[in-house]
Amino acid sequence: MIEEGMTRPIIIDTDPGIDDAVAILLALGSPGLDVEALVAVAGNAPLPITERNARALLELAERGDLPVFAGRDRPLRRPPTDAIAAHGKGGLGALHLPPPAVPVRPGGVDLLVRSVREAPPRTMTWCALGPLTNIAAAFVEAPEIAANLRELVIMGGATRRPGNVTPAAEFNIHVDPHAAAIVFESGAPITLVPLEVTRQLVNTRPRLARLRGIGNRAGEAVSTLLRPVPPSRRAMTLHDPCVIAWLIAPELFRGSRVNVAIETESRLTAGMSVTDWRGVTGRPANALVLETVDAPGFYDLLTERLARLP
Amino acid sequence: MIEEGMTRPIIIDTDPGIDDAVAILLALGSPGLDVEALVAVAGNAPLPITERNARALLELAERGDLPVFAGRDRPLRRPPTDAIAAHGKGGLGALHLPPPAVPVRPGGVDLLVRSVREAPPRTMTWCALGPLTNIAAAFVEAPEIAANLRELVIMGGATRRPGNVTPAAEFNIHVDPHAAAIVFESGAPITLVPLEVTRQLVNTRPRLARLRGIGNRAGEAVSTLLRPVPPSRRAMTLHDPCVIAWLIAPELFRGSRVNVAIETESRLTAGMSVTDWRGVTGRPANALVLETVDAPGFYDLLTERLARLP
Amino acid sequence: MIEEGMTRPIIIDTDPGIDDAVAILLALGSPGLDVEALVAVAGNAPLPITERNARALLELAERGDLPVFAGRDRPLRRPPTDAIAAHGKGGLGALHLPPPAVPVRPGGVDLLVRSVREAPPRTMTWCALGPLTNIAAAFVEAPEIAANLRELVIMGGATRRPGNVTPAAEFNIHVDPHAAAIVFESGAPITLVPLEVTRQLVNTRPRLARLRGIGNRAGEAVSTLLRPVPPSRRAMTLHDPCVIAWLIAPELFRGSRVNVAIETESRLTAGMSVTDWRGVTGRPANALVLETVDAPGFYDLLTERLARLP
Amino acid sequence: MIEEGMTRPIIIDTDPGIDDAVAILLALGSPGLDVEALVAVAGNAPLPITERNARALLELAERGDLPVFAGRDRPLRRPPTDAIAAHGKGGLGALHLPPPAVPVRPGGVDLLVRSVREAPPRTMTWCALGPLTNIAAAFVEAPEIAANLRELVIMGGATRRPGNVTPAAEFNIHVDPHAAAIVFESGAPITLVPLEVTRQLVNTRPRLARLRGIGNRAGEAVSTLLRPVPPSRRAMTLHDPCVIAWLIAPELFRGSRVNVAIETESRLTAGMSVTDWRGVTGRPANALVLETVDAPGFYDLLTERLARLP
Repeated sequence: MIEEGMTRPIIIDTDPGIDDAVAILLALGSPGLDVEALVAVAGNAPLPITERNARALLELAERGDLPVFAGRDRPLRRPPTDAIAAHGKGGLGALHLPPPAVPVRPGGVDLLVRSVREAPPRTMTWCALGPLTNIAAAFVEAPEIAANLRELVIMGGATRRPGNVTPAAEFNIHVDPHAAAIVFESGAPITLVPLEVTRQLVNTRPRLARLRGIGNRAGEAVSTLLRPVPPSRRAMTLHDPCVIAWLIAPELFRGSRVNVAIETESRLTAGMSVTDWRGVTGRPANALVLETVDAPGFYDLLTERLARLP
Repeated sequence: MIEEGMTRPIIIDTDPGIDDAVAILLALGSPGLDVEALVAVAGNAPLPITERNARALLELAERGDLPVFAGRDRPLRRPPTDAIAAHGKGGLGALHLPPPAVPVRPGGVDLLVRSVREAPPRTMTWCALGPLTNIAAAFVEAPEIAANLRELVIMGGATRRPGNVTPAAEFNIHVDPHAAAIVFESGAPITLVPLEVTRQLVNTRPRLARLRGIGNRAGEAVSTLLRPVPPSRRAMTLHDPCVIAWLIAPELFRGSRVNVAIETESRLTAGMSVTDWRGVTGRPANALVLETVDAPGFYDLLTERLARLP
Repeated sequence: MIEEGMTRPIIIDTDPGIDDAVAILLALGSPGLDVEALVAVAGNAPLPITERNARALLELAERGDLPVFAGRDRPLRRPPTDAIAAHGKGGLGALHLPPPAVPVRPGGVDLLVRSVREAPPRTMTWCALGPLTNIAAAFVEAPEIAANLRELVIMGGATRRPGNVTPAAEFNIHVDPHAAAIVFESGAPITLVPLEVTRQLVNTRPRLARLRGIGNRAGEAVSTLLRPVPPSRRAMTLHDPCVIAWLIAPELFRGSRVNVAIETESRLTAGMSVTDWRGVTGRPANALVLETVDAPGFYDLLTERLARLP
Repeated sequence: MIEEGMTRPIIIDTDPGIDDAVAILLALGSPGLDVEALVAVAGNAPLPITERNARALLELAERGDLPVFAGRDRPLRRPPTDAIAAHGKGGLGALHLPPPAVPVRPGGVDLLVRSVREAPPRTMTWCALGPLTNIAAAFVEAPEIAANLRELVIMGGATRRPGNVTPAAEFNIHVDPHAAAIVFESGAPITLVPLEVTRQLVNTRPRLARLRGIGNRAGEAVSTLLRPVPPSRRAMTLHDPCVIAWLIAPELFRGSRVNVAIETESRLTAGMSVTDWRGVTGRPANALVLETVDAPGFYDLLTERLARLP
């Protein structure tokens, strides 16, 4: 039981990544969240890039005191892939941060395991912004922790409409479907933020202008992150910040408890998050899958929270 | 090349079925179409019911001169399933027609094969309103006819959103995925009308009232077909009539040429019509997949054509 | 019921192929068998080669009166593959026959269908020596004939030990696993001669010497067929003649009635003939799978029958 | 590099299990092996039974000083299954041992990980006698240790002939195919002892009589373990002791380096250890798969080593 007024401890498992970066800043600007650590994973970019970006973003927000742990550098069974085509070679699009001073720590998966074992039951929340390799590895290492999480909030999956990598699959699930299968079979209290929700957030010019207008370093960084490279592209959709927004303003979202099963082997559909919206499969609900987001409310929240940062 | 003013020869492969019945009446009311035969298949109901309904519907429209052939009574490899829960035991919801006088003919698959072999190349059109068992059997029997069809218009598949049987699959494809795989790999000039299109047709009260108001036997039959049984349900979506509407008023529709591949074996996704909308798979386009329908225009057309029938 | 003393009508579906050629000659030399036709299929070599070889072999045996029909030139769903590496470009190893005079007939699959429909029930036997494409196509075209065959004897499959194409699959099944799946699910009275039986036949020097010593044209042809090209290889195993030997001397074989299921999609095991020898799967027996052959008796039989030919 | 004369450190991951018990005693009776710990896993029986049996067997051999750790109580993704039908409710057939005094320790997977991390590189050997759940979990927890093992010797798999659970799969692999897939993809230096080897060991009456004649407690225990329950059955095949025998007398075995891949999802072939004996798949060798065992030599060794125990 978390008392009213207490902050909520979270660990962010992440592969920054443009939208991961915005999510991290949103979390750091939210007093109700107590970010205990970041754990990096290979995903949008290789691990050496994602862990470096994680550290650099903390320093940008003057939170170099927070530890960054390196997790897995490749999926459980598949060969590694990345999304550098969308996030840029440095992983943060047009944003180039100075090399971070604080070193990375090894043992990201162990940190995840310890974070639950050493906390009171059902108090720790994990935010999973990238492929689920670290999370699955933690559950394989210590299956009992799944049920002891307060919440596992995952950005990933296409639950009603096509994916963004193959016709059937979304990137985070597709990169490591075997990990995703383990996670969705783990019994953890999962909240899933799928593409259908994040795509409801449209980076309109006025919204981008408001972020630019914040006037602090964080606002400037987010504006740079959302500057398309090349300019002909569109600004990156704010997939991952939805995970943080769900924790601090759940009233912006609506969702349903349903079953999500992960296809791992089919040539045509591997990486698909098969979601039983109508309850026809007989498989029990294993996730709260979000369906809608209040887009104006989301951008209000994002702008307000980023303004609290340096 | 079909000359201006000539009628277009078609064969309707069908499992009536409420919406099949409306489709058949729509075709019979359309002077531009020359319905050469109906071929029945097991699907919405077992074959003895679908072939009987096909004959009874022809007699309702005073077209007992047209032949009805019995095709396959079960899928190529899967055990048979039906949709009697939606279409009623008799297959036509609240509509109960007198036993037809004209007998059914055997050899539906052979009829399909002959219909192409005996016609000038690229003149014959098949309309597939049910599971693709007969069509696949014809292509297995005579692979060369696929390329000699003018068009194969199929109602089936969920191409962007969830299916109506499992989270991944639509009924017609799910009932016989092995047949569907053969058809989509056949090289035939396929036009696919998926659930995403047919669900754009909403049976509003004014629209149903207009159909009731036609005043002839066909209009009365369609009104009865669309009467929900039990009344708490909604009227059957007009899936199959879209196939006929596409032939007589293609301007009501928009679509794209893309690749459609059928999953046959996966436990989670069998029967899925995996549609590569963004061209990311490298598989060549094998179907024109319709995306939108002009719903008011469709109901105008349906009302106008049914009015021409007895 | 076939009366004592009557000959047994058979059709040989074949892709000659060295061992197919020996099988065809063995059948032609056996008075108890009435070879009604050969049907060619793509397999060991492309269809134009296999149908030509079928005709040339009949003429070699002075049976140019028998018809040869061309069946399918590719598998139901997979791209075509061949075994020219083993059978030589001409398909018959070191044997080069003059171009046959009698033309090939089209419609091999139709011939198969008619052969059962026009015969008394349970009198017709098919011998399948190649991929099962034609057989499956016939069963798709006319499912009811499966149960009206007297017997369908198939050379194919690896039922206890590894395959000869992949670790899991034998050539005839692997080339067209979708066809094989249809055939083994058809209800036909199947006898399967798998690799485990045919590999019990060892082409020892004395056995080859006896064949060479027959002294007629057929003996000479078989000796040439079994001459390894290049000489460093071993003589082709006499897979296909076992099918014919089973019909004329079943006492040479022993087998069991078990279930055989065909894997069609798995990346690792497609084309596998999964054989439930111990009855642990609950799937009902669908084939008599031969297990042993009396090798000396087989060679005695082969030598004696070839001696009856010109 | 292990010096001549030094003992070889091993950890036995095991689910005793009749043949596991014999393997453990064989190891304890072999001075060249330094058994550092036993790790129990669910398999032949549920975990509470297998860990209890592991402790009781150590006490039988007066080695209660050795630690027993509890590993996983269920497969990574599949529901648990057991082989109590073959091993008896207590897991040790007719052998009933007193409750062990020494308690079990938690953290079997952690112990495995530490055993490699804390030893010089390439000095630790793991013997896997049951499902590979613990081993896979250790590799997921710490992927780098796979390459730092001296050897991972696994009893499991059917590599040339049918399995003992399904037509395609052997028990240890079938129980947890996802674990097995991870292990065989791990890069560890694997030696596999498949059914084809262990079935070469026939428990003849003279061999059983020799074991009974040893005259010490261990010999008596093994005789009781191999007493069929009910008597109509045959004595349990000595699968697992082959793993230990390989370590102390490799000259009794012959094998080949080949690729082994694990099928995880196919309905027909899940749990199959697809072994590329002829190198036709292009997949690189990832295991030394044993092919033959000198059966008389094995029984000589077993008798001699058991005689050294109390």
